[in-house]
Amino acid sequence: MDRQKMVIIVTHGGEDPERATIPFVMANAALATEMDVTVILQTTGTWLAVKDYASHVRADAFPSLDQLMKDFKEMGGKMLACVPCLKSRNITEDMLIEGTRQVAAGTVVTEASSANATLTY
Amino acid sequence: MDRQKMVIIVTHGGEDPERATIPFVMANAALATEMDVTVILQTTGTWLAVKDYASHVRADAFPSLDQLMKDFKEMGGKMLACVPCLKSRNITEDMLIEGTRQVAAGTVVTEASSANATLTY
Amino acid sequence: MDRQKMVIIVTHGGEDPERATIPFVMANAALATEMDVTVILQTTGTWLAVKDYASHVRADAFPSLDQLMKDFKEMGGKMLACVPCLKSRNITEDMLIEGTRQVAAGTVVTEASSANATLTY
Repeated sequence: MDRQKMVIIVTHGGEDPERATIPFVMANAALATEMDVTVILQTTGTWLAVKDYASHVRADAFPSLDQLMKDFKEMGGKMLACVPCLKSRNITEDMLIEGTRQVAAGTVVTEASSANATLTY
Repeated sequence: MDRQKMVIIVTHGGEDPERATIPFVMANAALATEMDVTVILQTTGTWLAVKDYASHVRADAFPSLDQLMKDFKEMGGKMLACVPCLKSRNITEDMLIEGTRQVAAGTVVTEASSANATLTY
Repeated sequence: MDRQKMVIIVTHGGEDPERATIPFVMANAALATEMDVTVILQTTGTWLAVKDYASHVRADAFPSLDQLMKDFKEMGGKMLACVPCLKSRNITEDMLIEGTRQVAAGTVVTEASSANATLTY
């Protein structure tokens, strides 16, 4: 049987720590149940792909985003970032967390339409 | 045959009356077609779980949120609220609308992945 | 075999050009892969249904929204707008882009629950 798959689109960064953090809490909970999880960063959410950025984002009563993202990567989560969203923020490849994949809309559509659930934060 | 199921995640409260109200309009329309509906409150949306809070939220041209939430409950809708979101707002159990279930991320993942559609507002 | 179907709910207009534009980039990428696509406009997103409005919305590094919406229509995308959202903004039928369908919650529920993926922006 195919593994279940969850796609989580993140559209907030440090300007809204709770909306930036919750997606990774969800993602890690899904990974813990043996689901495949892809996080897709769009709009201000693309800032989360920048090395060391997450260590400056902290939502009250939640685990640290930095640690959540490390756990996410370790458990095999995939992280994609929207190309024009990166470009308009002058975020260049050398600034990205290792393993972040830069993708265009077609890939987002493929990911979302192959998922059992897609959440957008 | 299994009943269809819709999950609606609400991430806005009184600071955005329209985004707080529309999810319950959707939820009640889905309940009216015999679907199972679970509303999950996160971020500022958790305020909606507080007794009497909804009576102070009103979106122009929409039915009153208070009435929508009463109808939702009467038609069998389930309402869940995110534990850390409640905690960071000092919302305690005695303040919650009867029947509200406090849940962690694992439950949200289970709900979303078992739904035919998941909407996030 | 049934065609795949994507529903995209748009809840931002000119106040957030990137969140108004990305849904149509996604929509057109999905249409290009032979999926059926329905865009549903809610809250401030309903402004996008007003003729000539999109020509004043421009997100850095993205194609023009105006052109994206023209392509969307030409490729057969369906655009629905939430009735109370239009009403509260005094947007009347004569102001709408040709082909825009005004819908109540029941239609949104039907669309979302028949889709392979529903994204909310």
